[in-house]
Amino acid sequence: MALIVQKYGGTSVGTTERIEAVADKVAGFRRNGDDIVVVVSAMSGETNRLIGLANSITEEPSPREMDVLVSTGEQVTIALLCMALQVRGVEARSYTGSQVRIVTDDAHTKARIKSIDEENIRSDLSMGRVVVVAGFQGVDETGNITTLGRGGSDTTAVALAAALKGDECQIYTDVDGVYTTDPRVVDSARRLSKITFEEMIEMASLGSKVLQIRSVEFAGKYNVPLRVLSSFQDGPGTLITTDDEVEMEQPVVSGIAFNRDEAKLTLKGVPDTPGIASRILKPVSDANIEVDMIVQNTGDDNHTDFTFTVHRNDYKKASAILEALKEQLGAREMGGDNKIAKVSIVGVGMRSHAGVATQMFEALSSEGINIQMISTSEIKISVVIDEKYLELAVRSLHSTFGLGDDQTKEDN
Amino acid sequence: MALIVQKYGGTSVGTTERIEAVADKVAGFRRNGDDIVVVVSAMSGETNRLIGLANSITEEPSPREMDVLVSTGEQVTIALLCMALQVRGVEARSYTGSQVRIVTDDAHTKARIKSIDEENIRSDLSMGRVVVVAGFQGVDETGNITTLGRGGSDTTAVALAAALKGDECQIYTDVDGVYTTDPRVVDSARRLSKITFEEMIEMASLGSKVLQIRSVEFAGKYNVPLRVLSSFQDGPGTLITTDDEVEMEQPVVSGIAFNRDEAKLTLKGVPDTPGIASRILKPVSDANIEVDMIVQNTGDDNHTDFTFTVHRNDYKKASAILEALKEQLGAREMGGDNKIAKVSIVGVGMRSHAGVATQMFEALSSEGINIQMISTSEIKISVVIDEKYLELAVRSLHSTFGLGDDQTKEDN
Repeated sequence: MALIVQKYGGTSVGTTERIEAVADKVAGFRRNGDDIVVVVSAMSGETNRLIGLANSITEEPSPREMDVLVSTGEQVTIALLCMALQVRGVEARSYTGSQVRIVTDDAHTKARIKSIDEENIRSDLSMGRVVVVAGFQGVDETGNITTLGRGGSDTTAVALAAALKGDECQIYTDVDGVYTTDPRVVDSARRLSKITFEEMIEMASLGSKVLQIRSVEFAGKYNVPLRVLSSFQDGPGTLITTDDEVEMEQPVVSGIAFNRDEAKLTLKGVPDTPGIASRILKPVSDANIEVDMIVQNTGDDNHTDFTFTVHRNDYKKASAILEALKEQLGAREMGGDNKIAKVSIVGVGMRSHAGVATQMFEALSSEGINIQMISTSEIKISVVIDEKYLELAVRSLHSTFGLGDDQTKEDN
Repeated sequence: MALIVQKYGGTSVGTTERIEAVADKVAGFRRNGDDIVVVVSAMSGETNRLIGLANSITEEPSPREMDVLVSTGEQVTIALLCMALQVRGVEARSYTGSQVRIVTDDAHTKARIKSIDEENIRSDLSMGRVVVVAGFQGVDETGNITTLGRGGSDTTAVALAAALKGDECQIYTDVDGVYTTDPRVVDSARRLSKITFEEMIEMASLGSKVLQIRSVEFAGKYNVPLRVLSSFQDGPGTLITTDDEVEMEQPVVSGIAFNRDEAKLTLKGVPDTPGIASRILKPVSDANIEVDMIVQNTGDDNHTDFTFTVHRNDYKKASAILEALKEQLGAREMGGDNKIAKVSIVGVGMRSHAGVATQMFEALSSEGINIQMISTSEIKISVVIDEKYLELAVRSLHSTFGLGDDQTKEDN
């Protein structure tokens, strides 16, 4: 008999019909004898509706009151799911974050979990009840309602699984697992049966928006096996777990991630003095612009070129900031391009395999794709290319590293 | 500096625009230097929307989960109202029922308040904050969310005023006070400036649906001056208070209440034996039919006639029950009429004035209205008449007892 924590996102509980389908699924697990804790999000659209109400009053609502407001979304879902379970003869009991006592810090709208009181849940489980918990929310030490920020329901599920020492944390979503790359770009993209926590973090941050990064980090830290599955079709999904479980059977590269919406900016001929990087980036981050890749080449004549990428929406704002800096820093020239894309290969196997980078660059070169920027980490190599070559690059790399379902029989 | 508890119902907070209008009103009171606690209902329509969601899953949802579900309605309003107050430069802080700790029994969907922890509210008030509390909800001793039943926000407001020893509890609604009778029936109907708790209870139960009866009883018990006012227009409203405050200036009759939707049923020639009343009424109440007036005349030949009234919607069901009882009890005949109405005169002044009943009956008789049933209490006389005479009877009594605004200068 296993203890399983299951999380169903907003789309999976988007209507009462879908909530009933989730109840059917949960009832099946319960009848198999497993102990089940279910974490749910707000019905899809509900959080946006609530934010809309707030914004019709003020563009800058108090974070404390915002949390009081939006936390009602999940509270509605827990009640409805319990009703649907009870109709199916399954005993069930709902808990808001503050009823569980998921204690967080007091950083409203982006709180972090400090501790979980698991006593009530354990007592309900021992009575054979399914426990249904509102995701994304908690309570600070003085009793204020807090939320973990958007997508925080995944984090709630992982934290509960860690606190309860659950056997597995299952994240039900609208895709049936983590793929080697986006199947809309590469036909032969293949669902991975296993992937490591680290790889998943790199994949998630690069656009495979299956899981919230924080929840994967959390799962890795507490060693909670995570499984991504589809709410709408049966199947084993993708298990996200430790290196030990995965690495033996792992190919060198696990997946190809990419991001279309990037733009790059360059300051050329910047005096190469200590502190120059922060002098360039501080005004950018002060303007709330998130910087992704940063590349600085070795310069000559005490001058260097400094390049970074931002979200395409921030391109204009960032350009204006750099234009002002150009004068100030005595740079030679400001340049930029908002028609670029980033492609990355990800895999823990890279650590022990030399030549992966070479293989990647050769593949791109053989397609006539010019590489504009390169950045590497232990388990990832990212390149920036002209956006018009994005699909070609992804397909070429997918095939080069043998990821297609016509190329391997690894998957279950 | 007074401590005022204000309650705004669903219509008063039905849209974000209306919530902003309430914020304007509350901000005005706060700037006058009063300490303000605001109790709000769910935005109008929201509670029904939530019940609709539940009913699309099951017709008989668990009461515990129903409370988790519907309590979100008020939670949304408290957050939005606080945001609107803050935009106006008024410091404000929201509390759900369980955050205040409004402790109730565990009778889900119809819980009763046992105690209120007023410490947090007092501390916020002392810091100059407006405190905004979710009406209609509480928490039982083990932390389950409870609700007080529909309309329970009035009770929340009165209970808070009692706990905080507030100077006045103001109920803002869509009418500007309590009237001598329904102004849609009698043009000259007049707003009362004061009325006693007892009179208000009789008026409320007879159809002047301005206030929830329970909240008036509660206010009477704890001696909390209650004031009914309009959310939408300025004015002093109606103060509901003790006899001492009211009686001196009070006319004999304070108001004419009436109820259209009644039906009467009679069993004629029932053997007049002990226990006969309960043998008739038990099957009726077992069928969840609420009985209003009950009249049994002194019989002859050991037989009696037994008559009672029910809501018109229950007429068919009650008739079928009586038809079965007729045989069983050996009654002579079953009769009924669903075209009746009830008219009542209400007033604490009746206690000390003889002849009020006579005056009432004469007035009706002079209009040619036949009285079918009579029932009396200390401060109320009710009669059942043919429904077609309802308006005539109400106008005639309103004039007989001098209640019109052309007949008295009592108000303010």
